Amino acid sequence: MSAEAKLAKRGYRLADPPPPLGRYVRAVSTGNLVYTAGHGPFAADGTTAMRGQVGGELTLEQGQEAARLSVVACLSSLRGEIRDLERVTRIVKMLAFVNCAPGFSSTSAVIDGASELLEEAFGDRGVHARAAIGTSVLPGDIPVEIELIVEVAE
Amino acid sequence: MSAEAKLAKRGYRLADPPPPLGRYVRAVSTGNLVYTAGHGPFAADGTTAMRGQVGGELTLEQGQEAARLSVVACLSSLRGEIRDLERVTRIVKMLAFVNCAPGFSSTSAVIDGASELLEEAFGDRGVHARAAIGTSVLPGDIPVEIELIVEVAE
Amino acid sequence: MSAEAKLAKRGYRLADPPPPLGRYVRAVSTGNLVYTAGHGPFAADGTTAMRGQVGGELTLEQGQEAARLSVVACLSSLRGEIRDLERVTRIVKMLAFVNCAPGFSSTSAVIDGASELLEEAFGDRGVHARAAIGTSVLPGDIPVEIELIVEVAE
Repeated sequence: MSAEAKLAKRGYRLADPPPPLGRYVRAVSTGNLVYTAGHGPFAADGTTAMRGQVGGELTLEQGQEAARLSVVACLSSLRGEIRDLERVTRIVKMLAFVNCAPGFSSTSAVIDGASELLEEAFGDRGVHARAAIGTSVLPGDIPVEIELIVEVAE
Repeated sequence: MSAEAKLAKRGYRLADPPPPLGRYVRAVSTGNLVYTAGHGPFAADGTTAMRGQVGGELTLEQGQEAARLSVVACLSSLRGEIRDLERVTRIVKMLAFVNCAPGFSSTSAVIDGASELLEEAFGDRGVHARAAIGTSVLPGDIPVEIELIVEVAE
Repeated sequence: MSAEAKLAKRGYRLADPPPPLGRYVRAVSTGNLVYTAGHGPFAADGTTAMRGQVGGELTLEQGQEAARLSVVACLSSLRGEIRDLERVTRIVKMLAFVNCAPGFSSTSAVIDGASELLEEAFGDRGVHARAAIGTSVLPGDIPVEIELIVEVAE
């Protein structure tokens, strides 16, 4: 089963994410690496699905769902760049930021939502290095922002 | 017109930025990629041009100017590494941090100042993937810190 | 003298760090680059050695020690990936986050602890580009988190 089919089985469909929030593009290739922009949680219709701080307006579970939506948005942009996710040979690196309410520091548990989904979709190719950083503010008050470095077959 | 000439036309001259704030260097090459260190807004004379939080001591417009000065500082370091900016084949990735006053989350609008300037200077080669993260503290209380990954011709 | 021997002389022994805090791995290779995950300060027995904010519960000097322990943890994971640190041809890039108490912005001085140790261990090969970002929260309330991009001989 393809990565896209596995994601669909879990209820996550790749979409065309909305245009970037600013003067940048959603993914750039260099050699056999693709760098995605930072992505927040988009809904299927392209609107921002969730706003607020994890541990405040949002629960841990809602934060994990935001992480899943954010990484699905990354994969949508990745597909736009490489046409077919089956060209992915390795998810190399994830850098994730969590918009944390004061006193909330379980950023790793939040981002596990995204990491588990990558592993489900890509198997061993989806296992990556990661940093999950907390912050007190993200653009447009999104709860999670994720960027990926992905190795692809030429 | 060269990238440097286009920047000069906008009033931004590349300079030798001041020595790094710590025990690191301003740019390192590996293969055909150059990684710059994080750069804040330097003035032409090498001093830190702006301090404070955007949305607090600084307005959005001042934050955008800080973003432009920060990316010009990156380009000064890049030129130091590769001698001639015309060797740039692509600005691949920008990671940007904005020192935000409580309640300010328009990090994307702040960093657009830098992204637009790259596009003006390099055209299509300047269009990059990006993340613009908010934080509550940056070294020396600078308002913006930017790092770049740049692809260069061998 | 090898990098490991130089570290040992300073009192830092590479160890098997504890399993990752979440669903990720501690290092991934692509081409001749290794990306480490974000690492906090582990003690030799694998437990988290330090918690709290620099400039608050922890002094600047304690923050610098946390930075050294964090980068040693990165190198432990790197050794696990490449078997022998003598294969390192360049420490390319460090991205570091400091968990800052309100009003503390000397993130560069904190992270110099890690940068100096890399230079001691690897000489010119250890000199890197760097960003040292402040934040108000890190996973599990660790004071410092560091990730590295390392170039290795094939």
